[in-house]
Amino acid sequence: MTTQRADTIISGSYLIPDSRQKNVINNGAVAVSKDSIAAIGTSEDILAQFTTERHIHTDHGLIMPGLVNTHTHAPMACFRGLADDLPLMTWLEKHIFPVEARWTPEMIYHSTLLSLAEMIKSGTTSFCDMYLFSKEVARATVESGMRAWIGEVLYDFPSPCYGDLENGFSYVEELFGLYSGHSLISITADPHSVYTCSPELLTRLGKVAQSHDSLYAIHLSENEAEVNTCKERYNCSPVDHLERLGLLGPKTLAAHCVMLDDREIALMAERGVKVSHCQESNMKLASGTAPVVKMIEAGIEVGIGTDGAASNNDVDMFGEMNTVAKIHKVARMDPTAMGAEQTLHAATLGGATTLGASDHIGTLAVGKKADMIVLNMNQPHLTPLYNIPSHLVYAARGSDVIHSIINGRIVMEDRVLQSLDEEQILARMREIGQNIVRHGKD
Amino acid sequence: MTTQRADTIISGSYLIPDSRQKNVINNGAVAVSKDSIAAIGTSEDILAQFTTERHIHTDHGLIMPGLVNTHTHAPMACFRGLADDLPLMTWLEKHIFPVEARWTPEMIYHSTLLSLAEMIKSGTTSFCDMYLFSKEVARATVESGMRAWIGEVLYDFPSPCYGDLENGFSYVEELFGLYSGHSLISITADPHSVYTCSPELLTRLGKVAQSHDSLYAIHLSENEAEVNTCKERYNCSPVDHLERLGLLGPKTLAAHCVMLDDREIALMAERGVKVSHCQESNMKLASGTAPVVKMIEAGIEVGIGTDGAASNNDVDMFGEMNTVAKIHKVARMDPTAMGAEQTLHAATLGGATTLGASDHIGTLAVGKKADMIVLNMNQPHLTPLYNIPSHLVYAARGSDVIHSIINGRIVMEDRVLQSLDEEQILARMREIGQNIVRHGKD
Ligand SMILES: [Zn+2]
Ligand SMILES: [Zn+2]
Repeated sequence: MTTQRADTIISGSYLIPDSRQKNVINNGAVAVSKDSIAAIGTSEDILAQFTTERHIHTDHGLIMPGLVNTHTHAPMACFRGLADDLPLMTWLEKHIFPVEARWTPEMIYHSTLLSLAEMIKSGTTSFCDMYLFSKEVARATVESGMRAWIGEVLYDFPSPCYGDLENGFSYVEELFGLYSGHSLISITADPHSVYTCSPELLTRLGKVAQSHDSLYAIHLSENEAEVNTCKERYNCSPVDHLERLGLLGPKTLAAHCVMLDDREIALMAERGVKVSHCQESNMKLASGTAPVVKMIEAGIEVGIGTDGAASNNDVDMFGEMNTVAKIHKVARMDPTAMGAEQTLHAATLGGATTLGASDHIGTLAVGKKADMIVLNMNQPHLTPLYNIPSHLVYAARGSDVIHSIINGRIVMEDRVLQSLDEEQILARMREIGQNIVRHGKD
Repeated sequence: MTTQRADTIISGSYLIPDSRQKNVINNGAVAVSKDSIAAIGTSEDILAQFTTERHIHTDHGLIMPGLVNTHTHAPMACFRGLADDLPLMTWLEKHIFPVEARWTPEMIYHSTLLSLAEMIKSGTTSFCDMYLFSKEVARATVESGMRAWIGEVLYDFPSPCYGDLENGFSYVEELFGLYSGHSLISITADPHSVYTCSPELLTRLGKVAQSHDSLYAIHLSENEAEVNTCKERYNCSPVDHLERLGLLGPKTLAAHCVMLDDREIALMAERGVKVSHCQESNMKLASGTAPVVKMIEAGIEVGIGTDGAASNNDVDMFGEMNTVAKIHKVARMDPTAMGAEQTLHAATLGGATTLGASDHIGTLAVGKKADMIVLNMNQPHLTPLYNIPSHLVYAARGSDVIHSIINGRIVMEDRVLQSLDEEQILARMREIGQNIVRHGKD
């Protein structure tokens, strides 16, 4: 047998290549070549087949696919804890909108860096973001080495970023141009919602998505108020409104989907619409609980999203998995609902599928991109270890992640960020936070 | 001004003596003398008043009261992840009872040590535990330096610990004798529930509690099955059953209380009954959501509990606070329900009050016992910092706790346990876990 060269070998006591306990490899290893996975197997086999100058081994370490966060607003990280426990409109109008009106591109850039640091440090390797000034979001993301789907949110009123809507469409086209063929960044077309976007905006952005073969990401049926507004204006539900406009399709990624009835679930399944389930945000804002078990039964692919840090208040996908696995049990009064493997699937391959990226990420497999994380399982809350998906969903925390590899690049080692300067980001954000509070008191 | 001597001074960038943001002291410090708090104030003032040989300062550190976990089954730590996502009776009868039948005192002792390590490492300084072989639970707890209320659970059928019920009563009396006047351990009288204990058992244990002026801790109205069983047997609800037996009083600590109606809430408030709210367990086992907002409105003091690790699956009170603050918002469709300060209160002074210990613990105040923790706030998910209760409830994780002081003793420093040997505990528990799996396959 001839030995091959790997750029990096990652090994640990356990390797779970997907969401299933039956596929766990004890004393497993992954050989990484450039941006991809060259081989997976027992450490013994991999080390016999490959030589490398970079071998990262973790005793009691668990190697797993990086988590996929399918709905974020990364720059909102600097709003975390600014105001909580308020009625939605008070929160938005008194606390969020006034600060958003004063956004500068520089603030967006730094606040995104903060969110990127938090995401990497809690095990996320890919995310799908919609917000303002998304060129800045993309710029920060490229620095971090994370994989991302990024879009500029469009709506009917003037934006702090691009001003009039017409400029918004040019901004979006520029974004597509800037990142065409980029290895880590994909641009998306992002109407904010059916209640903030006219049918013309929704349709025109649908054509933009089509022309670039991109995702069409939208907040959909988040709460009762949205449904009522839509019914008043268009005499139909948000889902039916998109259906009439011909905008429900396999590249439509709908965030929230709290207020769906059975007919709408069947329709979305038929159209191949993807769903981003943001349970903690839906709880904190008292929106409701999305009928995720029914969606999955109907064949809809569901990923998990944290939503922005202002309504969560973190982007820790381990915490989100914990909540998702538990809330549907109590919502349906069925302790077998949303089991650990199903929930872990939603946070990995399920999420990748909603982003149209299941060929590249979401599991550890030969030929796929090398996006993986390593957890330290040598801790009281993870010992003994009977079932890995159970521990990942019900007991692990983002802080248990010690290494992160994205597209073959080591972005965190021993909890130290390699692509970003964490101390500098924190210092800068403390300054920005002080400015936000100072202006808030004007 | 004469300077006094302190045994230890703990200082940090922030000090929150209770659950209210308005009481935060920037650059605060606590002077500890023996087991108690000698002074609290700004670092400047404390360091001017006190000399010490042990000054622990943490830049970006937050000093706060240690968390109080009001309902645990510590030895169940070794069942975490053994079986999940199953109907309650399958889980109990096929997975938990068979292993419990093989318990040895030694296993209980080691499994308790594991839970103690996890609790200290996630910020809990006091807990209230009911389980089997509680002499072993108490022995391990004394080693750890934690403060605890511990009881032997009694029920009608033979116990793996004491055998026949009559021996159970002697075992409980022995426990009271062993820990009479102990500075950290209080013994409780613990009937398992109204569906596993005859009225005679409930009443007799009530007299035991009375004779020792102890807590009377019981699982109460946890789920629909319990209520139905009680109605069939006694023609009344579990709460009414205890009322008829004269067992509802200010020293009654009722865990769960998921199935209460308004009349029962009013009755419990009138009797001064205390409640331990175990939301994550209630979600995972699909029991329901306790009407905690109504209880608090009625004047019932509510603490937070994690329940055992087998039904949670961790004992991280930060995670539990996060869930508690969010679930009641969505359950009541009110984003203002269970605000951050109210939730933090439940996890600190509220919990202390349910245990009858609000004079000694639950806040940082001169003369109170020195039970406090220090969190590292210099992290992406905790920056910027606008409101400390919000961050503690919605963003912090147990792993953010770096130091823990209980009764004036430093039990963890820089995340290294000082009272317990963590590596030895983990190694021993891995062996025990392997034995459990091996026997499970018999
Ligand atoms: Zn959103
Ligand atoms: Zn319990």
